[in-house]
Amino acid sequence: MPTEEKEIYMNIALAEAQLAFGEGEIPVGAVIVKDGKLISSAHNLREKDHSISAHAEILAIERAEKTLGRWQLDGCSLYVTLEPCLMCAGAIAQARIKTLVYGADDPTYGAITSSVHVFDKSAYASPLIFRGEKKEECKAILDKFFASKR
Amino acid sequence: MPTEEKEIYMNIALAEAQLAFGEGEIPVGAVIVKDGKLISSAHNLREKDHSISAHAEILAIERAEKTLGRWQLDGCSLYVTLEPCLMCAGAIAQARIKTLVYGADDPTYGAITSSVHVFDKSAYASPLIFRGEKKEECKAILDKFFASKR
Repeated sequence: MPTEEKEIYMNIALAEAQLAFGEGEIPVGAVIVKDGKLISSAHNLREKDHSISAHAEILAIERAEKTLGRWQLDGCSLYVTLEPCLMCAGAIAQARIKTLVYGADDPTYGAITSSVHVFDKSAYASPLIFRGEKKEECKAILDKFFASKR
Repeated sequence: MPTEEKEIYMNIALAEAQLAFGEGEIPVGAVIVKDGKLISSAHNLREKDHSISAHAEILAIERAEKTLGRWQLDGCSLYVTLEPCLMCAGAIAQARIKTLVYGADDPTYGAITSSVHVFDKSAYASPLIFRGEKKEECKAILDKFFASKR
């Protein structure tokens, strides 16, 4: 995957995170790309939707499913500004996402390399994983959000 | 939790699984209960909804969130006929479900005691877990479904 492509799509995910920030939501954004085309984008809406499944990744997956008319997202790449949690890592595996690109680590709840390593020694097929893409920007917006809540 | 209560609610979850079976979906059903009252019930609709997040547990959680007007399902019990997958185990933790009662084990994808043990050594708060409630009936309907697909 070309570096330029990763940067372009992570910038869109960051723009989604910025929208979440503006709405008082934990600023996480996600986009899904297939064959060089943007299929969906979303940001966290847990508080507004009163729903734990309104994480950016799940919403982006649901929108991609609607666009493609199927739940199998084979060949799709998911870009997200924060390391996915358990629920989202499971959704990524269920949807058969091919490539996962994420920015900041989530030391407490991250389910890829932080709190749990869900793709190690499990039956769940792991996507190809790129970690730390634009991680400073991804972490900065989260730090700014939590600082504003103190 | 009284045995009788567990049996009553698992029977409703089984009735939901039967509905899924009739619709050609993998037969899994779930219900959510709070203070002795049924808050929501749902069955797997992955194929009909073209959505990986249409697992019975996620739909039951989303319906309970709508009913209660919040994403925090503290004090709620979730009954499900099959051991939750990674995504659903994560959703159960995110929603702060207090008690999880499940029937059949899922040796391949089960995320509680089978494929992955997500609540061991992770930051995710574990619900109180009751495993194997009416497991023969829960497994029988799944076996019948997969036999019909061969």
